[in-house]
This record gives sequence, structure tokens and C-alpha cells, in this order.
Amino acid sequence: MKVSEKEFIQAIDGGVCAAEGVRAASVTAGIKYSGNPDMVLLVFDPPAAAAGVYTRNKMCAAPVTLCRERVGKSPLRAFLVNSGNANACTGEQGYRDAVSLCGEVADALDCPEAQVAMSSTGLIGAPLPVDLMKAQIANLVSGLSAEGGHEAAVGIMTTDTRPKEYAVRVNGPEGPYHIGGITKGAGMIAPDMATMLAYVATDAVVAQADLQNILRAVVRKTFNCVTIDGDTSTNDTVILAATGATGVVLESAEAMERFEAGLYRVCKELALSIVRDGEGVNKVVEVKITGAASEEQAHLAAKSVSESLLVKTAIHGEMPNWGRMFAAAGYSGADVAPEKMSLRFGNVEVMRDGAPVPGWADSLAPLLKQPEYGLELGLGVGHAEAVFWTTDLSAEYVRFNADYKT
Amino acid sequence: MKVSEKEFIQAIDGGVCAAEGVRAASVTAGIKYSGNPDMVLLVFDPPAAAAGVYTRNKMCAAPVTLCRERVGKSPLRAFLVNSGNANACTGEQGYRDAVSLCGEVADALDCPEAQVAMSSTGLIGAPLPVDLMKAQIANLVSGLSAEGGHEAAVGIMTTDTRPKEYAVRVNGPEGPYHIGGITKGAGMIAPDMATMLAYVATDAVVAQADLQNILRAVVRKTFNCVTIDGDTSTNDTVILAATGATGVVLESAEAMERFEAGLYRVCKELALSIVRDGEGVNKVVEVKITGAASEEQAHLAAKSVSESLLVKTAIHGEMPNWGRMFAAAGYSGADVAPEKMSLRFGNVEVMRDGAPVPGWADSLAPLLKQPEYGLELGLGVGHAEAVFWTTDLSAEYVRFNADYKT
Repeated sequence: MKVSEKEFIQAIDGGVCAAEGVRAASVTAGIKYSGNPDMVLLVFDPPAAAAGVYTRNKMCAAPVTLCRERVGKSPLRAFLVNSGNANACTGEQGYRDAVSLCGEVADALDCPEAQVAMSSTGLIGAPLPVDLMKAQIANLVSGLSAEGGHEAAVGIMTTDTRPKEYAVRVNGPEGPYHIGGITKGAGMIAPDMATMLAYVATDAVVAQADLQNILRAVVRKTFNCVTIDGDTSTNDTVILAATGATGVVLESAEAMERFEAGLYRVCKELALSIVRDGEGVNKVVEVKITGAASEEQAHLAAKSVSESLLVKTAIHGEMPNWGRMFAAAGYSGADVAPEKMSLRFGNVEVMRDGAPVPGWADSLAPLLKQPEYGLELGLGVGHAEAVFWTTDLSAEYVRFNADYKT
Repeated sequence: MKVSEKEFIQAIDGGVCAAEGVRAASVTAGIKYSGNPDMVLLVFDPPAAAAGVYTRNKMCAAPVTLCRERVGKSPLRAFLVNSGNANACTGEQGYRDAVSLCGEVADALDCPEAQVAMSSTGLIGAPLPVDLMKAQIANLVSGLSAEGGHEAAVGIMTTDTRPKEYAVRVNGPEGPYHIGGITKGAGMIAPDMATMLAYVATDAVVAQADLQNILRAVVRKTFNCVTIDGDTSTNDTVILAATGATGVVLESAEAMERFEAGLYRVCKELALSIVRDGEGVNKVVEVKITGAASEEQAHLAAKSVSESLLVKTAIHGEMPNWGRMFAAAGYSGADVAPEKMSLRFGNVEVMRDGAPVPGWADSLAPLLKQPEYGLELGLGVGHAEAVFWTTDLSAEYVRFNADYKT
């Protein structure tokens, strides 16, 4: 990238509705016990080019199957999300329910059925309360607003403690445009698993094939690089929709590069907001692997270090336990050169050429007490890098997940 | 197997010394702070055919490198083990120290240096106190005894709360022989990681190539199927030595099958004793996967279910959380047929053909309160099976691993 990101990316308000042509609404249908909002509708004018990235879990939920069939195949006019019930492990009926709900939305908006898709998050194994939900579709449509982004972020929450949204304005030679999104939490958010949902929109004009490629690349470096407990949900979904409402057309290599940088910023901030809001999370640590033989190996090592229970408990205990980190890199499958490995916490060099650097222990204690810090582990083999964001593992995490009754 | 295992395998006392031709001794050299025994010597008469299976961690410790060079290449006359210091991440010096200590043992026993190997477990990153250790070798040799099996099991402990040993007598058409072993803990036994060491001996005559093949197969189904925290140590080592002291020669297919069954029993009991003794472990659960497309896929699914933090916290909370288990199987990489999946806890059928079996919840509560039980998850795809043993994840685990200072 020739110009600094700071010169062309600015954070702005508005969440997913920061993109022109996106309206949102939420209602309380009564799917959740709590009486909190549990249905959200996003509508795109004009119908958007769209791309999706989904869970690789083979037990994928009915709405994920529906998204795979529709998103990217025809323009996306509307996206329905419900919280409180995941419509997972619900068999053929679950799929029929998703189709039927999307059909009602299509009727209400007078658009083809194939232009509507949906997500669900919440309890698994229980049928959707379809009648309750259908009764709310007219209310959702009448409530649509270009100021509804925040309300939508609230409506998709399950055990999240706060709504999560982020948006940027991107300036390029083609003119300014916006990228904004909302997300809900992953990891230790029950009842059953860590469903991560994210909906991102832009008002630039981007071809569908480009959207799909860029979304896949960015998700791989953001949502797929945060880990709280390593479990993968049946419902994980990231959708990217381009309304093109600004008329700013992105085609040149430089334009696509800026778009990718803007999308990376939005997805990274959304992913980090999930990690920061995890139940029982006291620490967020950026784990950077350097010196790997390939990007894939760097990713393997970053994942292994980030998911190691011994590393996560060491972070919780504020211990600079380099042995646990080296060992987790060692069993990751990535090549390592023990006599060339290095480790730093923040700016403090702890290991160099595979041996402890004298005197590091004292200078480290204040850093390890911080709620967020970074560490960099060098494998000593090549030049590839990868970054993950992980958390501590606390006794509160265990209590939360052991006590949450189905 | 044509005859029942019960007819030809009997549990006996004696641990590793239950095999004729094995003598053992332990001493306190002062490697450990605690003043507990920290050096063990096993001697084989006559020198034994031997096989080894080691950690796949690329950060393997110096003694593992030495074992790989020696065990199985020449007969094994003696095996030295120290606890309290892992001789890992110690570079060239660590390797030279291991060679030098084995050399001293060879001198004391008047055997070739290549017939002696060693293991180390404990703190990583600190040099072995070689002088302290060399000063004890004469004491170890003079203390050798065919009754020293229990003492050896005590001497290899680190944070284990009790010694671990198991032995059987195997009756076959060729005559009776013995298999016995000792082990020390894995998982959450600090300071840095989960070193699992096991030394198993038999007094049957078995060819080296057969020993290696059978040991690899049995370790894959026993020591590699227990998981507490999923971390893999730099020092994990399993050694199998055959003194042949009984003169009972095993060659026929049936003889090898019985030997494998006996070795399986010993290794399974040793592996389970490790799991049961884990810090913060309140539950031990046998996770059996059935209906998999292949053994490899069954293993993947069993490992994924057994290592899922959400499953392990559910076990801790005594919740029959089938959603977490199905999801963990779903992201394991194994093929699953959601509409054919099944689940039972003990004898209680919870899911059949992908749907809950009515009325299971009440009959399950007493089972889930037991300290040990089994569950069986059917993937609905094929006929292959695998078994893992896992534990609950408790707040005590977190406290122990977060508070253990280096």
C-alpha cells in the first residue's frame, strides 16, 4: 500500500446504516424469554451485490443452507435475523421454516423470494416459533429506517453485554464511499456455542465476484483469527452487501486495495469487539507469529498458541510463561528452528536465538497487568507472518459455561 | 479375538518390575526443591529389545533426541529418568548433558554407551544439575532391586499426587509371561506443560520390529486418546522393553494378538490413572464415537468432542448438553449425517436419528453426577469407532495453571 491507511480511512458513526441505501428495523417477537428485541430486518436499495462466508461446521443450521443457496446468486434485497433460537438441529422442518419466513418478507417488500435470506442465533434443537415471527414482519417493514443501524446491532444480541458496530468512510480517487457493519458475539455465549454473526454493507459499486474474493480474504485474517474457546458454531455467518448507492465504482487495482483495507478495518474492529465482550474475559492479547515458512504455517502456530489452555491460563495469571508458548508453537505443525526462536511481550524482548534475554522478568510485570497487550513469537524459519487475537481463560469462564442450563 | 480377554489376562502387582529381568532404584539427588526422590534407574537383564514412541512436538527436548537415536537401534541395558528438570529448550548443552549422564551409567554397569538412554521431566529452560546427578549414579546402581517398581513409580512423579503403575500376567499356548509399567501425569501438571512418561516392560521374547509396531498401535489407542487440556509436551515418551527373561517366545499371529491385548490393558490403565489424577479433575468421561466413515475420522471426532471447552464445562456442570457435542463432532473434520446422528449417556438414549428421544432428561441426572461415566456419539455415516477419555474443565484447573509461577 503506497499511502498510509490513515490518509484514506476515517472511522464514522452509523454502523451498518453508514452505507447509503441500507435501512434497518428491529422488533420484539417474543422468541427470547427476556422480552428483548429478537428480530431484525435489513433492506438494501437498490438490491445489493452480496457475498457470504459461513461456518465450516458440518452440522450447519438451516438458515446457513438457505444463505448458501441464495446469497451471491441473485441480488440481495433483504436480510432477516432472529436471535433467541438458532434453528439448528431442526431437520427438514427447520429449512422449510426459513424458506417460509423469507417468503413472507419477500411478499411484504414485493420482491422475488430469492432476494431474501436469513440468519438465526440462540437455542439449538427447538423449532422456530414461526407464527410469532410472521406476525411481526409488517411491523419490521414499517419500522425500516436509515437511522436503524444501532437498533439492529441491539436486536441481534444474545448474551452479548453490549451492541457491536463499526463504520468507516473510505476516500479514493473514484470518490468517497462507506463501509459499515454490526456483529454479535462468539465464544462462551451460550446456550450452546459461540455463534458469530456479522452483516457488513458498503455503498460503493463492487462486482459480486470481487466482493466474494475480498470478503473471504478479509474474514480469514479477522473473524477467523479471534479465538475465545476454539469452538465453531453451527450458525456462523458473515454477509457483505454492496448497494452501490453512491455510484462510486471500484474497479482498478488501487481501488480494490483501498476497499480491502477499509473492509479489513471494519471486520477487525468488529471481531475485536466480540473478543472484548466475552463472558469471563479479562485480557485480550494480540498474538503475532513471525519468521514462519509460509502464511499457512504462521496461521497454524498463531492458532495453536492462541488456543492453548496452558497459554490462556498463563495470560490470566499474568505470567510470562514462554515455555508454554514455545511448546504450543512446537506442536502446531508449523516448522520451528528452536535455536533461532524469539519472543517479545510488547517492547520487552524475552527470548532471542532460543535463549532467555537476561533481566527481562522485572520489566515485564507492569505490561502483563494491562487488559490488552501484544506478543510476538518468531519461529526462526522464514519470513511469513500471521496475527491472532486471544483471551485469558478465567474461572469465571468455567462457571458461566458450566452453569448455563439448556 | 476368539477367547475373551478375561480368560488370559490377569491383573497382578509389581508395576514395571512384574516383568522378570527388570530391576529398579530411585534416589534423591536434589533436582527437586521438595526433597522428594528425583532420579530413577531401570536396568534390564538381559539387555532388552526395545521400542519407543515420542512427542510429535517440534520443540522436543534433548533426552527425546537421544532416545530416538538409541532405543531400538541397539539392545537396551538401562534407562535413566530424572524428575524436576525437563532438559528442554537447553540447546546443545542439554544434549551433551544427556549423553554424558548416560555415559556414566554405562560405565557403572560396564555396558556400551549406546545401550543406555534417558528421560527428563520438570522445569524447562534450565540446565540439568549434572554434577548433583552424576554423584548419585553409584547409589542408584547399588540400590537396584527386582522389588523396586513402586519406588520407581514414585521417583518419576512431578505434581502427580500418587504413583501410577499397573501389571498383568498373560497366559498363552507358549506359556505365561508378564507385562508391567509405570507412568507419570499429563495435563495441568506444571510447571510448563503436560509431560507424559511411561516405561513398560515384558519378560516375553518379542522381535524389535514387532515391539515397535505393536507399541505404536497401542499408544495410538491409549496414551494418545486421553486429553485433559490438549497440550502436547516437549518430552512425552513411552518406552517398551522386552527382556525375554521367561524364554517365552511370541511369534504366531495369535501370540501377537494376545500380547497386544495385554499391552493395551496395561497402557489403557496407566493412561486412565493419569487422567484420574489431573489437578482440578472431578469427572472422567469415556467418549466413544461410532458410525464413522473411517477409524481416522472416528479419532478426529472423538478428539474434537473431548477437547471442546464447551463440552468439558458442560461435563463439569453435569449438563447433558448434546448440542455442544454434536457441534464439536461437526467441526472436527469427520463426515457426519445430521439426520442419522445418535447419542447415549451410559444406557440412556438421548438422541436417535438426529432428534431428541422423549423423556430422557429425568433418567439422566443421576448418571451425570457420577465421577466416571461413558457416552457414545453415533455419526451415522459408516461403521468405524474410536474411544477417548476426557475430563471436566473446572475452575480449580484454571486457578492451578494461572497461579503456578515459573
